[in-house]
This record gives sequence, C-alpha cells and structure tokens, in this order.
Amino acid sequence: MQDNKRRIVIVGGVAAGMKAASRLRRLDPELEITVLERGRRVSYGACALPYYIEGLFEELDEVMQTPAGVLRDAEFFRKVKGFEVRPGTEALAVDRAAKRVRIRDLASGTESVLPYDALVLATGNRPILPPLPGIDLAGVHPLKSPEDAEQLMELAQQARHAVIVGGGLIGLEMAEALRKRGIAVTLLEMKDQVLASALDFGMAALVHRELRKNGVDLRLSEALQRIEGEAGKVTRVITAAGSYPADLVVMAIGVRPEVSLAREAGLEIGPTGAIAVNERLQTSDPAIFAAGDCAESTDLLSGKKVYVPLGSTANKHGRVVADNLCGREERFPGILGSLSVKVFDLNVARSGLSEEDARLLGRDPVTVLASAPDRAHIYPGAKPVIIKLVAERASRRLLGAQVLGSGAVDKRIDTLVAALTLGASVDQLATMDLAYAPPFASAMDPLIQAANVLRNKLDGIAASLDPLEVQQLRQQNRDALLLDVRSPAEHAEIRIPGATLIPLGALRARLAELPRDRQIIPFCKLSLRGYEAQLILQAAGFEKVRFMEGGILAWPFELETGPIREPATPEGAIEQVA
Amino acid sequence: MQDNKRRIVIVGGVAAGMKAASRLRRLDPELEITVLERGRRVSYGACALPYYIEGLFEELDEVMQTPAGVLRDAEFFRKVKGFEVRPGTEALAVDRAAKRVRIRDLASGTESVLPYDALVLATGNRPILPPLPGIDLAGVHPLKSPEDAEQLMELAQQARHAVIVGGGLIGLEMAEALRKRGIAVTLLEMKDQVLASALDFGMAALVHRELRKNGVDLRLSEALQRIEGEAGKVTRVITAAGSYPADLVVMAIGVRPEVSLAREAGLEIGPTGAIAVNERLQTSDPAIFAAGDCAESTDLLSGKKVYVPLGSTANKHGRVVADNLCGREERFPGILGSLSVKVFDLNVARSGLSEEDARLLGRDPVTVLASAPDRAHIYPGAKPVIIKLVAERASRRLLGAQVLGSGAVDKRIDTLVAALTLGASVDQLATMDLAYAPPFASAMDPLIQAANVLRNKLDGIAASLDPLEVQQLRQQNRDALLLDVRSPAEHAEIRIPGATLIPLGALRARLAELPRDRQIIPFCKLSLRGYEAQLILQAAGFEKVRFMEGGILAWPFELETGPIREPATPEGAIEQVA
Repeated sequence: MQDNKRRIVIVGGVAAGMKAASRLRRLDPELEITVLERGRRVSYGACALPYYIEGLFEELDEVMQTPAGVLRDAEFFRKVKGFEVRPGTEALAVDRAAKRVRIRDLASGTESVLPYDALVLATGNRPILPPLPGIDLAGVHPLKSPEDAEQLMELAQQARHAVIVGGGLIGLEMAEALRKRGIAVTLLEMKDQVLASALDFGMAALVHRELRKNGVDLRLSEALQRIEGEAGKVTRVITAAGSYPADLVVMAIGVRPEVSLAREAGLEIGPTGAIAVNERLQTSDPAIFAAGDCAESTDLLSGKKVYVPLGSTANKHGRVVADNLCGREERFPGILGSLSVKVFDLNVARSGLSEEDARLLGRDPVTVLASAPDRAHIYPGAKPVIIKLVAERASRRLLGAQVLGSGAVDKRIDTLVAALTLGASVDQLATMDLAYAPPFASAMDPLIQAANVLRNKLDGIAASLDPLEVQQLRQQNRDALLLDVRSPAEHAEIRIPGATLIPLGALRARLAELPRDRQIIPFCKLSLRGYEAQLILQAAGFEKVRFMEGGILAWPFELETGPIREPATPEGAIEQVA
Repeated sequence: MQDNKRRIVIVGGVAAGMKAASRLRRLDPELEITVLERGRRVSYGACALPYYIEGLFEELDEVMQTPAGVLRDAEFFRKVKGFEVRPGTEALAVDRAAKRVRIRDLASGTESVLPYDALVLATGNRPILPPLPGIDLAGVHPLKSPEDAEQLMELAQQARHAVIVGGGLIGLEMAEALRKRGIAVTLLEMKDQVLASALDFGMAALVHRELRKNGVDLRLSEALQRIEGEAGKVTRVITAAGSYPADLVVMAIGVRPEVSLAREAGLEIGPTGAIAVNERLQTSDPAIFAAGDCAESTDLLSGKKVYVPLGSTANKHGRVVADNLCGREERFPGILGSLSVKVFDLNVARSGLSEEDARLLGRDPVTVLASAPDRAHIYPGAKPVIIKLVAERASRRLLGAQVLGSGAVDKRIDTLVAALTLGASVDQLATMDLAYAPPFASAMDPLIQAANVLRNKLDGIAASLDPLEVQQLRQQNRDALLLDVRSPAEHAEIRIPGATLIPLGALRARLAELPRDRQIIPFCKLSLRGYEAQLILQAAGFEKVRFMEGGILAWPFELETGPIREPATPEGAIEQVA
C-alpha cells in the first residue's frame, strides 16, 4: 500500500520546508511526506532569536511554539499535521537518476537511502565566517539556530565587552539586544554605512546616530583583521584602525545560501550563488524544487536575480512549491527587497530600489525626503516618520522607499509595497484614500505629504536639497546660508550649527538681512515652513534658494542643544551685532 | 494696481478652503486671495474635537495649531501664508453673472460686495438635527465646531447621564470620550448596527460587544422620538422602546452638505445632495469650484456618486482646486470610503465595498474573515487583528476590506487601500513582499494569511462559514455541531456555549466520537486549527464539515468564561458521562 503513494522528500525543516509540507498535507491527504532536518529543532522562528537574547521572552522553546502555545516538534507534526519530520537527519547526496536521497542519522551515524517522486530543497543559508585568524576561538559566534542563541545567551550573561562584526539586520538587532543587557558594544562595519544594500547613505546616517545615542561604539569603514584570545577564548578584535576588547564576538557579516547538496547533485546555481529556479520554483531538474533561503528570487523592479533570504519569502515559497507539486500552477512573481528592523527607538523599513540602485540601473531617479508626525500631531503618542521616496523622472513611477523614525514606519512601507508591486505613480500615491482618524494618521498622511512634495519637485515648483546634499554643498561652498525659519524657542532647544534664525512669520519683514548673492537653504522642523520660506524668498526676487527636505528631524549630522553659543571670534561677534 | 490682480474668493475657512488658499498662494504670489469664514475660528481640526472632550489635550486652541505649536488665526495666515482670512464673515449670495459675492460682517451686521474672478465653495457640512420635540432644549448638542466642543465640554463637566443619538463616527468617539469622563452613556442607533454604511453586520457586532464591555448602554433599532426637559433643560430621551435619563444629549445622526449658497446661486446639486463637480472639482459654473464636505465624490469601485465628508478628502480637494485655478490640469479620481475609528480598545478600519455593497451592485462577492496577531506572536505587545476581505468571484479582484482588533488595523487597511486603488487581485495581495520583522509583523502577515484563506475558498479547497453564518445556521439547524479544537486550557478560559471540545492533536484518534450525519463546524482561536480539523475530517470521510473563519476571536456573540458549567438536564449529564 505504501508503494502506491507519491513520495515527497523535503530537505530542511525550518520555514520553507515546513510550510511546503503542511500545505502539501492539506492539499493531498494521500501523499507520503518526509521532512529531513539536520538540526535538533524544527520549525523555529530564527528571526526572533535576537529578542530572546535581549530577554523579551523567557524560554527559547517559545520560538518553536504556535500562536496557541503548542510546541512544534516532530510529534506535533505527526499528530496534528499528519506528516513525518526527522530532526537530526542529514541529507548527504541526491541521486537524481534513481530519484533517491542518501541520508544519515546524526545520532547513530547510520546511513540509509530514501526514494522520492519529488524532492524539495529547503536547505536554508549559512552564516559567512571568513577564514581569519581567531575565528574559531571560544566566544566567537554567528546567530542562526536556536543552538547558537543558547550559546550566545550563556556568553552574554558573563560578557562585559562585545564586538559585533557586520551592520546588517542581525548585527543591528544584536547590538540592541546586548546593550539592553548592559554590555559594552562595538559594532564593526567594513562599509561606510550600516544596511548598505538597503538604505541610501543619508538614511543610514540616521541609524548611525541612533546607535551612537544608545552607547554603541560604531566603527564604520573598518574591516575585521583578526581575533585574538587567551587559553582558547576570545579577548580582543583587531582591525586596521584599532583593537577592541571582547569577551563575546557576534559574527554577522551576512549569510550565503546553503547549496552544497544542490551543487553536488549538478543542479544549476544562479548568478547570485543561490539555486536557480523558475517562477514555479522548479530547479533545473523538474522533479526538484527549491524554496526559502537556498533559492534565488527575481527583483520585481529591476527584473534581476537577487538573493534576499527572509522568513516572509520562505513561507510564500513553501506554499508555491506545494501547490505546484499538487498540480496547481502557482507562480512566485518575485520580491521588492522589503525589510524592516527596529534599532533601539528608531524603526527602519525599506522596499524597492534605493536611489543608488535606481541610478546604477539607469532609471533617472528623483527623490524626496519628508518628515511628518505618524498621526494627528495633537493626538497623544504621535511620533515622527521620515520618508524617502524614489521615483523615475519620466514615468513618475515609484521605484522605492525608505521610511525611518520612532513612529509607525511599518505601516507606511507596507502601503508603499502595495503601490510598488502594482506599479503606482507618485500621483496615484498622492490621491489614495488612506484611512484617516486622529489616533492613526493625519488628515494628509505622511505618505501623501511626501508624494505631494515629490510632485512639486517633478513639476518644478519646489526646489530643494536633501540633508546629505546640503552637507555636501556646505563643504564645497562655505558661503551657503542655512536659514532656520522655526521659532526662537525651537531654535533654542536644538539647532544645526551655523544656521541663521529668522522665524517664518518675520521673514517677509526681514528680507533685507539676507544676502541676495549667496545660496540660501531655508529649513524648519519638518519641511513645510522651509518650503514656504523658499517661495517667499523667490517671490521677493532671491534666485538661489532651495529648502532642505525633511527638516531638522531628518538631519543626520551634528546638532547643537542647550544655550546658544556666542561666536568665538571677534569678527563673528561683530557680525552678530550687525 | 489691485485691479490687475486675479481675485480668488473662497467661502469656508476650515480644511478644503484653507488648503486651497495656501496652495494658491504657493503657486502664484500675484493672486489676490480672500477666505470668508462664518465662524470665529479658522483652519481647525474638527476630527480632534472628541479627543478634547475626552481630555487628551488641555486647550481647545490646540486643534488650531500647526505641528510646531503656532496658532492658525487670521494674523498667522496674513503674515506667514500671505493671504487674507475674514472670520465672522458670512457669504449671503452669489451673483454669478456679475461674479460677485454679497457678504455680511456678522459682528457689525454690515453688508458689502466682493468681486471674484474665480470662486471656491468650501462651505462644509451641517449636522442633521431632526425637527423633533425637545431638540432645542439646553443640553442637546451636535459636535461640529470648536464652539460646540466648548459647550459640550462645559456640559460634560456636570453631566451624569448622557444619551448619544447615532452610532456613526462621532457617536462612537463621543461614547468613548464621555465614558472616560465617568459619565453613564446610552447610545441610540436607529438601525440594527453601528457604522451601518461602513461595516457588515458581523463586523459591527464586534463593535457592539466592545461598547457594551466598556459600559455603554447600546440601544440598537431604537429611533429617537422626542426629548423632554424641565425649565428648558433636557432631562430625558424617549424612544418607542424606552425612556432614558439625560442631562446631556449629543446629536450625532449624521451630517448633510451645506449647499444653500450653491443651490440659491443655481449651481447643480448632485444625486447625493452635495454640489455636483467634475474631476477637476468644477461646478456647473466653470468659474466656481467646490471642495471638501460640500462637494460630492465618485466611488472608485462602483463608479457611483457618493457623499463621504472627511478631512482627508477635503485636504486633497483643496490642492486639486488650487492647481486647476492656476492652469494645472489636476484631477481628483475619487474615493474608496476609507475610514478608521478607535472605539475604546478596538481599532476599526474599512475601505472599498462592504459585502452588502458588493451584493447590491451585483458583483458576486466572496468573503473571508481571518484573525491573526499583528506582529510575531512571541514579540511583546502583539495584539490581534481580524480581517474581512471582499473579492469578486470571477475576476478574483479585491473589492473591499474591514479590519478590526486591538492590533494595528490601520496598517493593514492602508495597504489594502493601495491594493484597491490599483485594482489588485487576491492573488497579488497574497504574494506581496510586505516588510517583515518580529516587532512589526509575522512572517506571513495577517493580510497574506487572509488572502491565502480567501484563495483557498475561491479554489474550492477550504469550506468555511463566517461567525454570522455559523450563528444563522445554528438557529436554523439545532443539530449543527460546533467543534472546538483548541486545547483544554484555552477552552476552560473562554468558549462558545454549547461547543464540543476535541483538541486538534487528539482529533485523528477520536473521530468515532463525532456524528457523520450532522453538520460539523470546527473552530479554534484564530482559524488555522479549525481549517486543519476540516481537512482531517474530510479526509476521514466526513462530508458535512465547514470550519468557522476567524476563530473565537472573531465570534461576536455570547461567550462563556470561567469554570465549565455542568449540563443542567439529566440527559445532558448522561451524554457528558458517555
């Protein structure tokens, strides 16, 4: 009887593999489904591991529980889901001609052979551990599995100095987790910014400030050279620029797709290094599918193959594979590289192409940066969001977005994800009937405000610079005048060094104080008063005026607080009196 | 000199009018812009008034402040924005042939005439006050203007019993505001549900429960008959069903567009009773535009004219009008009837067509109801959202959505607004690359889960009923067996009266306990285990099985908590032992 059943073997029992198995069982009660998992645990939420180390929940097993609190172990899957899961079982090789997988029970060392009618590779990823001196010292650890989390947790309970290598998602989440445990944290990033593949520099600079504000010793443009230890345990981390004490090192440079099984079986590996698949997630062997972090995806906006391993995509992949294995023509269209991450009190989210991506792809991007409260500004708990939109100049089509702030950035990015998926223009975004009530949004949602400023730019009405452009301009042109049009009280609280204060309400009356030959850059807290100032100055015949987008909220560079410093030089003093 | 300038007169200085004026000034510094406002105050956020009465902010003036805390009064607009605002000025009549408005200064009574080149009507709405006995008693009040809020606030400080007439947005917000002040609240609604034009009955039933849970005496299907008082002050409210003590009555039946000026000027009034406008928001007189709560809109999904007065639309209108007045061909495409409202701890949001709307329009709707945590269920603060999606069966296109729960419903509705605006199918929604991280979402976002269940229904894989259908079925067919497949601990905590408990993990072993001839309705907390139970039962040959969508979280009817009651009858007792 067993012989008549169609046999599906799934290699990998975390996200994509378990989703595929569950959906297969739901679609076809007759299938024989076996999931092989090398690790001890199956179906865990790897993304939650940093929060375990932060101490947000007590038991590591919680990352393997259903929303109803039931542990997802092999027994659960057999009894509830009705399929077989074998933890501690490694797939050693695939014999495609004979349709068999050679497997090893890791506890006993016994090898055996498992026949399949269809095979699903959900082998996941593995952390990059560069072959540098000291990488094998005790206390040097990646974070991938619950076992890693257990060991890091043990280390964290003793550690005083941690070095995190890599400013990606896991690096940032671990920086917060370890700081919250009271550990001194140095974060090393080889590039000049964190989240380099996700954010443009100006937005990443806001993350840099948040990290430093929370006591993270952020070291940009510093590559790890070696790790040193004593008695087999890590003691310090060495870069070209310095040496950092460490009794704990988190290796978070990134991950690579786990494709050794696929490669040895002769399956096609794509340009990204992940397993090549078609839209049905079939590999170069039609009897073998790949899903999750071992498979590559198509970027919906560039059409290029990309490798973005995420649990959200893995779950979608699992469903598509199961459907196709049951004769349902499901396709996985692709991804937008959407992601979100909490970095202390700064929420960070992005989707689509960055400005740099768009430029490299020749899409002639126009961008805008806009700051606004995430709900009615008088409603308690309103917090800012800073939105960067990227659009294609000629088509006015949205290409990407980055949203940062202590407010509800995740809401805005998901709305933009829908817009990007469906090819919306900036103009369509600006007129969307987003739901409005003071506890949830402002009458003009921050997204609509941002879209309108971008329309103004595309239409040649608004002339502006983003904070990064302003900083670059000031470095090239020391004459450029940064004009703070906020109130004296706002200026006294926090200000950009060197900016001149003329409140917007007084501007029309005080035009004579401003030089007509110099570049003037008005700004405010958000953007609107800066823009109004630009229009007032232009109407008064000033020709070199561009307001600063996003206002002081989006300014990622030096800020001055407290009492206003008197100019240090006599010349300055005279100028001020004059 | 003044004579050469183009003169724009705007009637109404709250949202649409002020937005139009501000944008006009930004687009053209040469225009002569005059805003007439009948009330004392201009540019206030009317939507925030219930929160003032709730006590969430101290000063009523805050609803007229910019995000930077500056009061938006006539002086502010003259000095900062550069146009003229005349509060306390009523527009009496429009002479279209001569292009003149006759106006009256309300303080002095002086009448004069104002010529215009273009006129913008932004006359807003007025609350419906039915001509019933007692409507003029002191203590009976609508809530529209800051003056209303001032008076209601004064009354609320003394009141012990309030009656709110009308279960729309303002009625619900005022119910919460007054309860939070410790006042006994009766809410009268003529229809059998609150938010009747926005929510289907089953979703509104969840709002009813939330109101009652928070001590609101909700009286559905009860029309106001008369209001009684003593010495000119309200004392009680009378309906066909009862009499309710009241020292404060909030009239919140709804609003009508304020169109008397337009009608008397002979402008076309649309089928909704609001001023008819084209896509450029031009009235039947090309020199006159209408914007905001006095103008009608087009529903993007039905193509019909609708009247949905909201500050979000008013602001968009203002911009479109200004652009068109400055020679820019801007169009306002229409609305989706999106709205959100906080009702105590229940967040409520909706957009597009309701199931009932869709049925009345002949769109053959298929719906789904799905419950899920709004972020990773192990992340602190995760709260449920209950999503109802409405789609067109043949095209699989999304038609509408209702999202309720203590979690982030506003995020999901705005994502759906983008999807609805751009004509997305359920399948497109299911594969969207929504941003995922545990603090913000689950790996399968609730939206994607809901879309997948709806796909399963459309594909004939899932057979289900929503809670309202279950309740109706139970009333018709007393034999229907409600099967709770949660854990004994969950069942002990809260349960649907009369449901039979067999935990999902034990189901395969206990099939013999279930009757094969009766309709079986498995359910769980959310939906997934109920669906799995359906599949297990079907695979075991049970033919009459449909799981309940949304689980116990979406069940709006009676629930039992605490110790499980023993059956009252001997028969029941014997059955239980057996």
